[in-house]
Amino acid sequence: MAKPVAIEVHNPNGKYRVVSTKPMPGTRWINLLVDQGCRVEICHLKKTILSVEDIIDLIGNKCDGVIGQLTEDWGETLFSALSKAGGKAFSNMAVGYNNVDVEAANKYGIAVGNTPGVLTETTAELAASLSLAAARRIVEADGFMRAGLYEGWLPHLFVGNLLKGQTVGVIGAGRIGSAYARMMVEGFKMNLIYFDLYQSTRLEKFVTAYGQFLKANGEQPVTWKRASSMEEVLREADLISLHPVLDKTTYHLVNKERLAMMKKEAILVNCSRGPVIDEVALVNHLRENPMFRVGLDVFEEEPFMKPGLADMKNAIVVPHIASASKWTREGMATLAALNVLGRVKGYPIWSDPNRVDPFLNENASPPNASPSIVNSKALGLPVSKL
Amino acid sequence: MAKPVAIEVHNPNGKYRVVSTKPMPGTRWINLLVDQGCRVEICHLKKTILSVEDIIDLIGNKCDGVIGQLTEDWGETLFSALSKAGGKAFSNMAVGYNNVDVEAANKYGIAVGNTPGVLTETTAELAASLSLAAARRIVEADGFMRAGLYEGWLPHLFVGNLLKGQTVGVIGAGRIGSAYARMMVEGFKMNLIYFDLYQSTRLEKFVTAYGQFLKANGEQPVTWKRASSMEEVLREADLISLHPVLDKTTYHLVNKERLAMMKKEAILVNCSRGPVIDEVALVNHLRENPMFRVGLDVFEEEPFMKPGLADMKNAIVVPHIASASKWTREGMATLAALNVLGRVKGYPIWSDPNRVDPFLNENASPPNASPSIVNSKALGLPVSKL
Repeated sequence: MAKPVAIEVHNPNGKYRVVSTKPMPGTRWINLLVDQGCRVEICHLKKTILSVEDIIDLIGNKCDGVIGQLTEDWGETLFSALSKAGGKAFSNMAVGYNNVDVEAANKYGIAVGNTPGVLTETTAELAASLSLAAARRIVEADGFMRAGLYEGWLPHLFVGNLLKGQTVGVIGAGRIGSAYARMMVEGFKMNLIYFDLYQSTRLEKFVTAYGQFLKANGEQPVTWKRASSMEEVLREADLISLHPVLDKTTYHLVNKERLAMMKKEAILVNCSRGPVIDEVALVNHLRENPMFRVGLDVFEEEPFMKPGLADMKNAIVVPHIASASKWTREGMATLAALNVLGRVKGYPIWSDPNRVDPFLNENASPPNASPSIVNSKALGLPVSKL
Repeated sequence: MAKPVAIEVHNPNGKYRVVSTKPMPGTRWINLLVDQGCRVEICHLKKTILSVEDIIDLIGNKCDGVIGQLTEDWGETLFSALSKAGGKAFSNMAVGYNNVDVEAANKYGIAVGNTPGVLTETTAELAASLSLAAARRIVEADGFMRAGLYEGWLPHLFVGNLLKGQTVGVIGAGRIGSAYARMMVEGFKMNLIYFDLYQSTRLEKFVTAYGQFLKANGEQPVTWKRASSMEEVLREADLISLHPVLDKTTYHLVNKERLAMMKKEAILVNCSRGPVIDEVALVNHLRENPMFRVGLDVFEEEPFMKPGLADMKNAIVVPHIASASKWTREGMATLAALNVLGRVKGYPIWSDPNRVDPFLNENASPPNASPSIVNSKALGLPVSKL
């Protein structure tokens, strides 16, 4: 067992002991904890994923709360250990909490926090970034240039596609899907086709209004259409971004048959969850269609890729960085710290976990509340009146 | 001397002989020439840049017109050879014609064509693509993933920046600079600061109207500002794209001193001309400021990079592909072919070289005119009344 060897301590005499299993971006989250009387310990162990044993060591005999990561296994063992150490709260630095056994947390009366409300724009911008990079073959072209293969301008060198006037397809038009749709429609004058079980009235209204605005300014308006099936999107769009939730109905949503429906030179982007795409089928499709391009932030068996994917020039692959902007990551750290602090201090739970602006304002003290506790009802915790 | 070994011939019995020094994207340009009685010969020599001798061989004893490339040296020797072979026209497949000695062409009465009007959006989209890829460190992250270094999600892995709400700086707000500014303002809700010797009233009006549109839809409006100096843009913007013309006043416009004025974590994009940036100073700046990022499509001594640039992780380098979209490159090929065809057939010159839509409509015959001849006045060629 690897022992945590490097612990960074802030405010050693603090009344409450709060542990973070990883260094997190920014310093505001540390200052907020310290200002309210916490001793903050940050684990600097050079290890990507901490084991349950590592975290038991970190919890020790006295620990009021822990800030942890999606890669850690928070179940019976850890909640039991945290409870024995007097702990009241655990918060993921993430929106998701697949790694947490909430039932076990309930059993020990431990609040479980997450960090919604700060990921939408950053995730949508990554999807846009992958879309544009794929359209213009940026990664492939960069590799060619760095390898010293460029000898002079050529008519056929890395010809990609112009997005303006093409059709963007969005599968899953929730918060992130809608934000992405608007980036591509407004930024690049793409026409929109989307598929979602629910009508996205807000998005439809906005794109309609934007089209009218363009027309009033003497320009070609953009159009939108709600597709009656996912297949319709796959057939018609030049660029498709996946934003569904992952469940039984969306597992391998994009499979061999559905890939075959897409245009030969289409672009597919996935910043949602890896298993939404049948990655083996995708590798075969990329091999057979050299101008089909893909931008992936997530993988079926993360952190691994299916054989062959790493060799495909028509793929762009990035290591799950959809939320990796300074603003978002610092915001996530702040919200996770405040989730734990709120329970430690006995504050109520914030009434709307998506309305987090008051917690992120660097020029004012945050509200005395935990921003987002997923099991607040189960634990019967009071809700903030603000 | 390497001899052209592979010539692709269309319509061998055509009355006029038109030669293309390179294969060009699409087939419409070939069909248009063939339909009007030309024999079309395309050189497939596996050589990035043809020498003057190669092209003399291609011209031969009888040649009515040549379509050539920016990388070829069109001076006294070639125009003399083309004239002796009975040629009337040469067209670059490019907007620029630094490679052409127009005086020499005038001397032999040979029309020189270029291909404006189809590059604006494609070039601006490449600048946007490089901006987004740099903001989210896509190339670096892709390399990390492909190298198998990813072990699991980490709070600090490839943290970039959220563009929304940041400031985009545009230096040179002509056609391309304005199109780029709008992509970033509308797509990513960035505030605009621009510097240009001329006021860009059209851009200012549009961004004002767009800000009002956002406000009317209950959103935070975007703002714009015309800077009184380039330095003001460099100091204030988070993302800066260069779109000036290259002349004595813009050579090394971005030098050591000006790089030092920029924010430590700023992003700089150049899709204009290489010598606008002092590349040696840039390499040093990148080395000293690991979170300063750059996206480059052009280089001071193209096709080469200054020492060290190819090793910088905070640089994205692509081989002069700003105009490399299918739509634009096929449009350039069509316009270049029609420039030559027009002179061969004795058609007049189109009155507005930027209004090229009638030539690009695939469902109709193009106007009987040369779309853009740069020395039409010097040669006293008639202008189309359309």
